[in-house]
Amino acid sequence: MRLYIGLVHYPVYDKNEQRIASAVTTVDLHDLARVARTYAARKFLVITPLADQQELVDRVRRHWTRGFGASYNPDRKTAIELVAVAPSLDGAVESISSVEGEAPFVMATDAGEQEQNVLSFADARAMLHQDRLLFLLFGTAWGLDEQVLRQSNAVLEPIMGVDGYNHLSVRAAAAIILDRLVGMNRISLSS
Amino acid sequence: MRLYIGLVHYPVYDKNEQRIASAVTTVDLHDLARVARTYAARKFLVITPLADQQELVDRVRRHWTRGFGASYNPDRKTAIELVAVAPSLDGAVESISSVEGEAPFVMATDAGEQEQNVLSFADARAMLHQDRLLFLLFGTAWGLDEQVLRQSNAVLEPIMGVDGYNHLSVRAAAAIILDRLVGMNRISLSS
Repeated sequence: MRLYIGLVHYPVYDKNEQRIASAVTTVDLHDLARVARTYAARKFLVITPLADQQELVDRVRRHWTRGFGASYNPDRKTAIELVAVAPSLDGAVESISSVEGEAPFVMATDAGEQEQNVLSFADARAMLHQDRLLFLLFGTAWGLDEQVLRQSNAVLEPIMGVDGYNHLSVRAAAAIILDRLVGMNRISLSS
Repeated sequence: MRLYIGLVHYPVYDKNEQRIASAVTTVDLHDLARVARTYAARKFLVITPLADQQELVDRVRRHWTRGFGASYNPDRKTAIELVAVAPSLDGAVESISSVEGEAPFVMATDAGEQEQNVLSFADARAMLHQDRLLFLLFGTAWGLDEQVLRQSNAVLEPIMGVDGYNHLSVRAAAAIILDRLVGMNRISLSS
C-alpha cells in the first residue's frame, strides 16, 4: 500500500470564507502522525509556507525523534518520524514523486458534497489495494480552498453521520477516513 | 439508537501504571462532542471527581451553549449541548438509568487484547441496532483502570491498524469506534 497524507494549512478558508494560512497545532501533529502510523501511511506532510510554522513542526519532530521524547515514549517516536514539512501542495507532490518515481493520485477531502470528480470510500479503498500511489489531503480551519479541490485528481465523498450533521474536527475526520480506507477488523456492511 | 458515551478521567493509568485522575482538556471535549453529535449519541458524559475539573467542563459548556460561542458557532452549540459531568462511573450509570428507565449495558474500550468479556465491533453494532441501551467508555491518559474494565459488562475489541501499532489518541479512537458502530456510508467488507 502506498499512501501519503497531507495536512494543508494554506490555502484554507476561515469562518468567513476568506483564504488564510492557519496555524500549526501540536495536537494535530500528534494525532495525525499516530493515525498515519496506525494505518501505514508512508509520510505525513504538513503543508505550510510560513517559516515559523515550519520551524515549529521541525522542533516537535526533533523532540520526539531525537530529543528527550524519543526515549520517554518510543511509540510516539515511530509516529512522529513520519512527519515532514512541505512549503506548498506542489512541493509536497514533488517530494512524493521524487521518492516514488511517479506522481501520486491527489485526493482531497471535504465535508461538503462536491458536484464532480467525487470518489466513494469503496473506490478509494480499491485504488489503494490495487497499489495506486495515493496522496490524501486534509484541510485545517474551515476546510480546503476551492483551488486545492480543483488541483486534485478527485475529492473523496464526505463522511455521513446519522442525520446530516457534518462538523468533525480534522483529527476525527482523518482517523475515520483512514480507518475506512485501510482498517482491518472492520465489519461486513452493505453501506 | 440509544447510545451514551463517557470519557473517564478517574480511575485511569499514567505511564507507570499508577492510578491517577487525569486533567480535562478542551480539545477532548470539543472533538468527542462533535463525534457524539455526528453519530447521534444521546449524551457525552465527562467523568471526573475533581471539582475544579468539573467546573472547567461547565464553563466550556456555558460558553458554547449560552455565551458568545453559541451565536458565533451554532454547529458547535448542538455538539457541546450533549456534554454533561458525572463524578464517577456509578454516578454516570445512575444518571443514564434515571433518564432511560433502565440500566445501560456498559461497554469499555481498551487498546489491549482482553481475555474475557470481549465484544466484536459487529456484535456491538448489532446490539445498538437492536435498540439496546449502550454506554461506551473511553479512557484518557494511558487508559482505563482495570477496575473499570471489571465493572463493565463487556470490553470492545481493540482497533487493529495494519501491523500491530496500537497507539491512537482517545480523540481518534473514539471517532473510529463510533464510525464503526454507527456510521452510514461505510463500505461493504468482510472484515
